[in-house]
Amino acid sequence: MLLKGSWIYMSIKCFAELKQKALEINEQFKVVGIWPDVETIKTAEQAKNIGLADFTFVFHEKIPGFPTIVVPNPQIALETGIDLVIRNEVDTLMKGLINTSLFLKVLIKSKLIKGWVSHTSVLEIPNLDKLIIVTDGTVTPNPSIEQKIEIIKNAVLCAKVLEITMPKVALLSANEWITPNLSSTYDAALITKMFERGQIECEALVDGPVSVDLALSEKSALKKRVALRFDPPADILMAPDLESAAFLIKSAVYIGKVSVAGVLWGMMSPVVLTSRSDNCGSRVISLCIAKIARGVIDS
Amino acid sequence: MLLKGSWIYMSIKCFAELKQKALEINEQFKVVGIWPDVETIKTAEQAKNIGLADFTFVFHEKIPGFPTIVVPNPQIALETGIDLVIRNEVDTLMKGLINTSLFLKVLIKSKLIKGWVSHTSVLEIPNLDKLIIVTDGTVTPNPSIEQKIEIIKNAVLCAKVLEITMPKVALLSANEWITPNLSSTYDAALITKMFERGQIECEALVDGPVSVDLALSEKSALKKRVALRFDPPADILMAPDLESAAFLIKSAVYIGKVSVAGVLWGMMSPVVLTSRSDNCGSRVISLCIAKIARGVIDS
Repeated sequence: MLLKGSWIYMSIKCFAELKQKALEINEQFKVVGIWPDVETIKTAEQAKNIGLADFTFVFHEKIPGFPTIVVPNPQIALETGIDLVIRNEVDTLMKGLINTSLFLKVLIKSKLIKGWVSHTSVLEIPNLDKLIIVTDGTVTPNPSIEQKIEIIKNAVLCAKVLEITMPKVALLSANEWITPNLSSTYDAALITKMFERGQIECEALVDGPVSVDLALSEKSALKKRVALRFDPPADILMAPDLESAAFLIKSAVYIGKVSVAGVLWGMMSPVVLTSRSDNCGSRVISLCIAKIARGVIDS
Repeated sequence: MLLKGSWIYMSIKCFAELKQKALEINEQFKVVGIWPDVETIKTAEQAKNIGLADFTFVFHEKIPGFPTIVVPNPQIALETGIDLVIRNEVDTLMKGLINTSLFLKVLIKSKLIKGWVSHTSVLEIPNLDKLIIVTDGTVTPNPSIEQKIEIIKNAVLCAKVLEITMPKVALLSANEWITPNLSSTYDAALITKMFERGQIECEALVDGPVSVDLALSEKSALKKRVALRFDPPADILMAPDLESAAFLIKSAVYIGKVSVAGVLWGMMSPVVLTSRSDNCGSRVISLCIAKIARGVIDS
């Protein structure tokens, strides 16, 4: 029941719902797949069959059933793909079997870049009635405070795609106490205060430093007697560096059997960048995020 | 069936088996609980009921049903407990509601210390037919190469408790390639080579840098076409720093709903150090590790 004169914002709670929203968008979504592996081609086939996206490939040989531009190597494939996006012939890129370092190096120097580049992983956790965004396990090994703020802004954009209007952002650290042995606690405290002062243009409820358990579990917050600025679980888990983010995500996926999707922000349109080990289902969901994001960024 | 003239080593596969092994040890196991919270007392009651361990407490008030030494504050409680271990009146300590930093600071300066202090978490993962050791999410924020080697040696001791004779140690990093942007890849490669040269006295099969997915999943290793020195899953996941280890463990527990136990190595006998958010079941298993370890260290 809607209260008179008010909106009730209902965020997207699971991947099935996310897929549904993406399929409801009537405009065509054109993607160029860069140097595909088998999973990328399977993803393209599934996306085409369900009417989610149309694929073109750039590869060293013709891919049956899809328009293919034949090029000699992955780097030229990527440069060709970037050119297609700039010339507005496709909406975005999807990374295939090309080394992530090379992919990012070429991408970041290209004309696609509109801001700070960072990656978000979206986790669908069994028995949790919401999606969790983790950032950034892919781009910047040791972000500065300024870079961390840009990473948060990108994650808030991702939250907007999930229809979360005022996301709860947990700035992660191994400890809740501000301690000189852990520089992540300094950065988290400073960024939290900057948000409190209103000096960052970004609609989000930010608190840190917090440990992973505190960010996710109300019970743990009660036990540790730490009063947070929001009730756990957070919507966005912002890790202090690439490696700790990557371990958090991989642990969830490979130990917890959690499903994950991922896109790269800071470009004209978000780029689908999944891990070589991600399966077709993950990649389709990543495509959905990129498709919905197009409308969010334009608005 | 035992092959003639050979031993078949069967490692401990789950917490139930670990508990069974600890209960089969006939010698008494005496533990002093430092400044207990409710979970610590529940753990002591359970340990007493099943004949696993006998508890004494050091606290600001008498704990019903247990010998209690009454002291005014947590620090004095810890100092009193350490003294009991040194005087051989109890076998080891169990941390209660006392800040981990304070606990470690006092402990590390005490006469209990026999080597480098580090923590291992043991994870019981559903549908995985083995236990996984993760280290070190508790003690040293940024270990040097020398400290990392000591951390590995302690984890190998923990593997011995689990009856793994030649543990597979994955030196984790965000990347499998040696890259100057990620110092963890340098350290991992150097330590791997040191083990290859036989310059480290430690029975283990070590390889790194490897990502979490590669360390755990044979499928991922095949997809990424990286030849490891052992078949995944590894027995020991050695993280490059405290924070990334902590995130890996907490992600498994709070996202993956995995059970975890933990002890601290480098003392006369391993100390039970669990997180405030760990439940009674976790703590009992941690006690079992400490009890079995006593025999392993003496041997």
